Amino acid sequence: LRRGFPEVVFGQGKTAEQITQIVNRLSERNERVLVTRLSAEVYAQIREELPDDAVYHQRPRALVINRANLVCRPGILVACAGTADTPVAEEAALTAELMGNQVERLYDVGVAGLHRLLDKLPMLRQARVIVVAAGMEGALASVVSGLVDAPVIAVPTSVGYGASFHGLSALLAMLNSCSSGIAVVNIDNGFGAGAMAAMINRLDER
Amino acid sequence: LRRGFPEVVFGQGKTAEQITQIVNRLSERNERVLVTRLSAEVYAQIREELPDDAVYHQRPRALVINRANLVCRPGILVACAGTADTPVAEEAALTAELMGNQVERLYDVGVAGLHRLLDKLPMLRQARVIVVAAGMEGALASVVSGLVDAPVIAVPTSVGYGASFHGLSALLAMLNSCSSGIAVVNIDNGFGAGAMAAMINRLDER
Amino acid sequence: LRRGFPEVVFGQGKTAEQITQIVNRLSERNERVLVTRLSAEVYAQIREELPDDAVYHQRPRALVINRANLVCRPGILVACAGTADTPVAEEAALTAELMGNQVERLYDVGVAGLHRLLDKLPMLRQARVIVVAAGMEGALASVVSGLVDAPVIAVPTSVGYGASFHGLSALLAMLNSCSSGIAVVNIDNGFGAGAMAAMINRLDER
Amino acid sequence: LRRGFPEVVFGQGKTAEQITQIVNRLSERNERVLVTRLSAEVYAQIREELPDDAVYHQRPRALVINRANLVCRPGILVACAGTADTPVAEEAALTAELMGNQVERLYDVGVAGLHRLLDKLPMLRQARVIVVAAGMEGALASVVSGLVDAPVIAVPTSVGYGASFHGLSALLAMLNSCSSGIAVVNIDNGFGAGAMAAMINRLDER
Amino acid sequence: LRRGFPEVVFGQGKTAEQITQIVNRLSERNERVLVTRLSAEVYAQIREELPDDAVYHQRPRALVINRANLVCRPGILVACAGTADTPVAEEAALTAELMGNQVERLYDVGVAGLHRLLDKLPMLRQARVIVVAAGMEGALASVVSGLVDAPVIAVPTSVGYGASFHGLSALLAMLNSCSSGIAVVNIDNGFGAGAMAAMINRLDER
Amino acid sequence: LRRGFPEVVFGQGKTAEQITQIVNRLSERNERVLVTRLSAEVYAQIREELPDDAVYHQRPRALVINRANLVCRPGILVACAGTADTPVAEEAALTAELMGNQVERLYDVGVAGLHRLLDKLPMLRQARVIVVAAGMEGALASVVSGLVDAPVIAVPTSVGYGASFHGLSALLAMLNSCSSGIAVVNIDNGFGAGAMAAMINRLDER
Amino acid sequence: LRRGFPEVVFGQGKTAEQITQIVNRLSERNERVLVTRLSAEVYAQIREELPDDAVYHQRPRALVINRANLVCRPGILVACAGTADTPVAEEAALTAELMGNQVERLYDVGVAGLHRLLDKLPMLRQARVIVVAAGMEGALASVVSGLVDAPVIAVPTSVGYGASFHGLSALLAMLNSCSSGIAVVNIDNGFGAGAMAAMINRLDER
Amino acid sequence: LRRGFPEVVFGQGKTAEQITQIVNRLSERNERVLVTRLSAEVYAQIREELPDDAVYHQRPRALVINRANLVCRPGILVACAGTADTPVAEEAALTAELMGNQVERLYDVGVAGLHRLLDKLPMLRQARVIVVAAGMEGALASVVSGLVDAPVIAVPTSVGYGASFHGLSALLAMLNSCSSGIAVVNIDNGFGAGAMAAMINRLDER
Ligand SMILES: Nc1ncnc2c1ncn2[C@@H]1O[C@H](COP(=O)(O)O)[C@@H](O)[C@H]1O
Ligand SMILES: Nc1ncnc2c1ncn2[C@@H]1O[C@H](COP(=O)(O)O)[C@@H](O)[C@H]1O
Ligand SMILES: Nc1ncnc2c1ncn2[C@@H]1O[C@H](COP(=O)(O)O)[C@@H](O)[C@H]1O
Ligand SMILES: Nc1ncnc2c1ncn2[C@@H]1O[C@H](COP(=O)(O)O)[C@@H](O)[C@H]1O
Ligand SMILES: [Mg+2]
Ligand SMILES: [Mg+2]
Ligand SMILES: [Mg+2]
Ligand SMILES: [Mg+2]
Ligand SMILES: [Mg+2]
Ligand SMILES: [Mg+2]
Ligand SMILES: [Mg+2]
Ligand SMILES: [Mg+2]
Repeated sequence: LRRGFPEVVFGQGKTAEQITQIVNRLSERNERVLVTRLSAEVYAQIREELPDDAVYHQRPRALVINRANLVCRPGILVACAGTADTPVAEEAALTAELMGNQVERLYDVGVAGLHRLLDKLPMLRQARVIVVAAGMEGALASVVSGLVDAPVIAVPTSVGYGASFHGLSALLAMLNSCSSGIAVVNIDNGFGAGAMAAMINRLDER
Repeated sequence: LRRGFPEVVFGQGKTAEQITQIVNRLSERNERVLVTRLSAEVYAQIREELPDDAVYHQRPRALVINRANLVCRPGILVACAGTADTPVAEEAALTAELMGNQVERLYDVGVAGLHRLLDKLPMLRQARVIVVAAGMEGALASVVSGLVDAPVIAVPTSVGYGASFHGLSALLAMLNSCSSGIAVVNIDNGFGAGAMAAMINRLDER
Repeated sequence: LRRGFPEVVFGQGKTAEQITQIVNRLSERNERVLVTRLSAEVYAQIREELPDDAVYHQRPRALVINRANLVCRPGILVACAGTADTPVAEEAALTAELMGNQVERLYDVGVAGLHRLLDKLPMLRQARVIVVAAGMEGALASVVSGLVDAPVIAVPTSVGYGASFHGLSALLAMLNSCSSGIAVVNIDNGFGAGAMAAMINRLDER
Repeated sequence: LRRGFPEVVFGQGKTAEQITQIVNRLSERNERVLVTRLSAEVYAQIREELPDDAVYHQRPRALVINRANLVCRPGILVACAGTADTPVAEEAALTAELMGNQVERLYDVGVAGLHRLLDKLPMLRQARVIVVAAGMEGALASVVSGLVDAPVIAVPTSVGYGASFHGLSALLAMLNSCSSGIAVVNIDNGFGAGAMAAMINRLDER
Repeated sequence: LRRGFPEVVFGQGKTAEQITQIVNRLSERNERVLVTRLSAEVYAQIREELPDDAVYHQRPRALVINRANLVCRPGILVACAGTADTPVAEEAALTAELMGNQVERLYDVGVAGLHRLLDKLPMLRQARVIVVAAGMEGALASVVSGLVDAPVIAVPTSVGYGASFHGLSALLAMLNSCSSGIAVVNIDNGFGAGAMAAMINRLDER
Repeated sequence: LRRGFPEVVFGQGKTAEQITQIVNRLSERNERVLVTRLSAEVYAQIREELPDDAVYHQRPRALVINRANLVCRPGILVACAGTADTPVAEEAALTAELMGNQVERLYDVGVAGLHRLLDKLPMLRQARVIVVAAGMEGALASVVSGLVDAPVIAVPTSVGYGASFHGLSALLAMLNSCSSGIAVVNIDNGFGAGAMAAMINRLDER
Repeated sequence: LRRGFPEVVFGQGKTAEQITQIVNRLSERNERVLVTRLSAEVYAQIREELPDDAVYHQRPRALVINRANLVCRPGILVACAGTADTPVAEEAALTAELMGNQVERLYDVGVAGLHRLLDKLPMLRQARVIVVAAGMEGALASVVSGLVDAPVIAVPTSVGYGASFHGLSALLAMLNSCSSGIAVVNIDNGFGAGAMAAMINRLDER
Repeated sequence: LRRGFPEVVFGQGKTAEQITQIVNRLSERNERVLVTRLSAEVYAQIREELPDDAVYHQRPRALVINRANLVCRPGILVACAGTADTPVAEEAALTAELMGNQVERLYDVGVAGLHRLLDKLPMLRQARVIVVAAGMEGALASVVSGLVDAPVIAVPTSVGYGASFHGLSALLAMLNSCSSGIAVVNIDNGFGAGAMAAMINRLDER
């Protein structure tokens, strides 16, 4: 079994038929299945044909089957800057949970109102690994990393407009941060951030 | 006299002869002259031929003549993130001073070590206009603006490497800030930031 | 109260439910609320559930609640180049008004027909702060700034096609202007330009 | 003879030997030869081996042989914004002259100081074709075109820094101009602009 | 009257009401009106309210009113590479015709099948000014210009996919052509190309 | 002490004087100091003035002072694709070592010759955290990650030419990898990759 | 007959009427016709009017008429990385088949799970020419080429999100591969890849 | 032996010591060695230490050892547009020759003067595989491909200035060509083009 991972399906660009077939096949032999980027439209078409215990999460567009009785490991914090960044943050959180981790959520803490972030310093400092999702406030990853000693996985989101260039601005800001202990995943890749955080958090179990 | 401005010469791309001739001509009829982007090499060639009271500032590569007896107006703060950003910050400060303003300097306050910035909160909050110069820590403009009520003029610098893309990353980060009260000038344009801050600070004298 | 600002909500990427809930909550404790980038579709869904005195402005897609009895300060001029730039210009003007400023509007003054702009020279020269919104005519900010002594806040708009690259061309043109006293906000960020202009115009009241 | 053109050699990327050989060969059979982008270093190496009547123009880096007794046609005006744009403007002017045109020069007329341009309105309106070279003031092409009825050939120059992106900003600004009667050549392509202007100015002689 | 031009309206980004009002107002005082980039949807809404002699051209999305009795001047050729480039070519042709020129059309002559172009050499060589519109075959402008002595106005189109980047590839190819006598307008700017060609073709009438 | 980190100085853009002064000051109060991006030229100027136990590593351009008697933790592997990528890989390795880790090196294992990589599978699978540095072979990070369960920190390098665009190509390739458990740092940021790997490897000691 | 090729029509940007007319005309004089990028919507409109033996392939959006009795030449392998890349792979395969080649398909072999690819080594090594289509796993082309001696035609696909930039990331990765024997076609250009492979595979028949 | 290939060393980014050591080691066990991108400076330093039969080609910066007695296969033509493109073309030709092919050279055939190319039609049509190298005349690949039935390997070169963007313009033009039978390698990658051509030309010997 690769990495003790759940099976993960990349939903985008697959037809409704393909999704149905893959999920049902995987569901037979696996306790945990995750489909990312599954649009609400496709889900609506196929929901009747999916296993009964498949749960669809609307904003992160994720389908989750979780029949495993995992002992979840605490240690992961997922933070995000604006309301519009929550779907990506939620994709990260769901992924990390499905991989056997307990996830704290700290949403809507922007850099423009720093005090809200500083108020949560104890929570931030308790985390072993932190995921930061932000589109217009790419700065958040740098600020958070400066406040803690934990490794930070930064996810730029495509939230924003104009010179945000669909997440490029946040991506570049995160890559250029002077704070050490930050690494970055693809724009909107909440899944990748959550999986990386999970692998780090459970590293000593290998 | 346009704007009560000093005469400003854009030094880059001009030959040594052109600079000498322009500065001497302007110097005859003006109390204040500023040459920006004058390389140390060109300055070395022409220093003997310039007016005696012309002062060359090496790191910001600026030549300044200031014979005016201005009453300087307090209110401008120039902040920058890293040591390598200081030439641009200094260009802004020199410009604002030459335009009749008193300038506080707050250098080397990065986002990665937030406490150094927070320690200076009183100084930040006292400023009427703030210039923030940063290359790798484009986030600084956003953080500063979130802490104060004063308008912030952000100058991205070309300091950095790799995905900083010669200042593009900082430029984009500054443009996308969610904090209101930020506007941005060209990469490395300390002059433009200083002039804008000066105009704002002395607005009610018009 | 941060900056004597109205409460501002970034409408894009929020669900109808989120908008309704935030506006109603803010409306209870605030005299002034602004929602930017609220699409006509979302507004149509929620209009019945919003406070009665909430006014929706269609082209700038802005929802405004203003129960404050502000003495408005004159001094701001908002100019734009083409008819298609007016929504952004209007977002700037509404923002500045809500922040206690009187706003003059000078719309449809392009660079291609310079005389229309020159005819308004007295109006331009009377302004204390000028906002210039332009997409295809990024040149306008530079030309206006050259004609006046007031600081200019330039807003590139995404109006145009082809090599306008959704506002990038105007953004770059504005950043490279040789005229001093220009600073730039994000593409289509009328809100940011209006807020910056308001802060500058009321600076001496702090 | 193609187009009644002089022979033109693209000097960049050719070795000293290649230049010498090509120029001498062309010089035997042609009254007019133009080498563009010939660096001062290469010229210094080969000057003794070139025909006696070859003239090297330093700032535009152009080598010109002109033994033709052309009746020059008036009608072309070459304008540029800043001192640093003159080499490109001069390349355009030399090219047009070598192709049998009389060229007026109007240098150092920026948009930031519009009055200098407006003072020359009669000169601008007399031209049949206008070349505008500008780097930081890409706006100039648009403003000039708005003032005249003549076709304008715009040449962006690589003058500038930061977000000028080596002429890209000026190129985009010129392409997006709303004024009709503008077409654009490559960044720093003074030769191309001069040749196009010459072809247009002498069109009815074909 | 500026340039003896028809009145031209940029249709994109204007509401149906704005278009109707502008066209009717202009139609009262002008013999010729052109609206570019008017979508079929907007046209369908307002057709009843427009002047009876307004003609809508579907593929180039242009509305034309032409009551002038112009003596048309021969000399303009409009060429394009693929079927999908014809709307832009047609916008150029309509514009030039409305400005008093006779326009030859040479459509569907690609570089991949050079013989079709070479077969039309006499037609190409007869033209005084040539417009070349191409998206995937940006090379066409260069090839045509190499075959003729007339000035070429090149219009990149957004036709293509992948690395065509919505016309950027064709734009760059056209700007870099080694052939002299080419100048370029904005991507999809058939109007600009047609107007430039018209101005050149009628230059000696000024 | 923040993170039990050594003190780290960003050498680029600092003058020789600044480096000397900072290193000597830090050296007094710290057992470990690291200067990154210190050019050989600057080092040659100042070597006499630095502490005797400062060691300069030429290819990674790093100055290291290490007087700590750390018990190094095994678990980190640094791999790179080509010979030209080794300076960046070495910067990562030095950083991780200075932070108390034992580092295995696996250099010159490209994707074009997969067998060399597959031969080292046992070594790869033993690592707890892997750093992969590659410029032309951005693919390597993806391939390595697919072969192991350990988290992979990918560092794009600026090695390459043409469409490598100074590391951009490798950066994008790494961000888009489908393999989960990869996160990316800035182009050429060996330091950042090494620090991140060190933090992950020693996570359970916190 | 150019190249013994089937007639090929680029369906994108053509109206339903244009497609119908072209296909029927070509169908009269040709045994083989291929229409690429024909949307399902347009096909639905015109299917009744097309020749009876025209077959529409939905995912690759290709219309094929094949009445030739070709002896197909073995030797081409088409591989792709993800399910979402199959339409492009299929376009390549259909094209090569229509040009008289036998095509093996090897779909869904990603780099993240290398063993699936290595399991097919005999199949890979038997091919004379290989087409590799991939969007998120641009690395695949490099890996395949490293395993075989056959020339590889790489097709980047626009599959992906965020920093895939619609295929740009895969395109760059493929261009920078160190493995020799790779050449690249446009993003999503399955047709071009298939045609190139076909020409190479049948080269000795010329 | 991988592919019957000579051993190839990528010279760029390797130190003089590394080159010397690698070449001498490879030279012992191989009849053919190629070092690409070896600068004249490095070569000058190490020439005495290299095998006596190593030949350095200055403009393509290639070091070649060829002791094999290959029967060369005719069929490859290398064409290029401008004099400045010849180093890249020559790198391709040397590579193909070293791999056992006879190479025809057709240099300095631009699109601007089409007749020179058309004069060589018989030579073009005789080739089995064609390499086309061009920087400013990216169009050449498309034109050549349209004239012949052979597969064309296109190499964009970084020759040009301004909007050539160091070869990007030529790269995009080549990728977008409508002619089928073109595939593209990296900017300035003469080696890759030559190797691909050689593999295709000798395909039936496998
Ligand atoms: N949102 C996502 N972004 C990037 N990679 C993903 C995502 N979702 C799934 N994957 C990866 O894609 C693989 C499944 O791809 P597929 O077989 O095409 O469904 C998984 O093993 C993951 O590694
Ligand atoms: N560093 C600078 N960046 C941008 N604009 C500048 C700079 N220095 C001077 N300028 C502007 O350039 C004008 C002078 O240009 P010039 O006549 O070419 O010397 C001044 O009036 C300033 O507005
Ligand atoms: N159109 C806009 N562009 C940029 N920032 C905005 C805009 N509208 C609101 N904001 C900022 O976003 C904040 C509200 O964000 P949120 O809490 O996500 O609604 C406000 O305080 C503003 O600073
Ligand atoms: N100019 C070049 N461009 C791209 N790849 C090259 C070049 N020269 C050599 N290579 C490849 O690089 C490999 C050698 O890389 P290295 O071991 O780093 O010298 C060779 O096998 C070639 O596949
Ligand atoms: Mg930290
Ligand atoms: Mg603030
Ligand atoms: Mg002004
Ligand atoms: Mg005009
Ligand atoms: Mg011509
Ligand atoms: Mg793995
Ligand atoms: Mg191979
Ligand atoms: Mg062909």
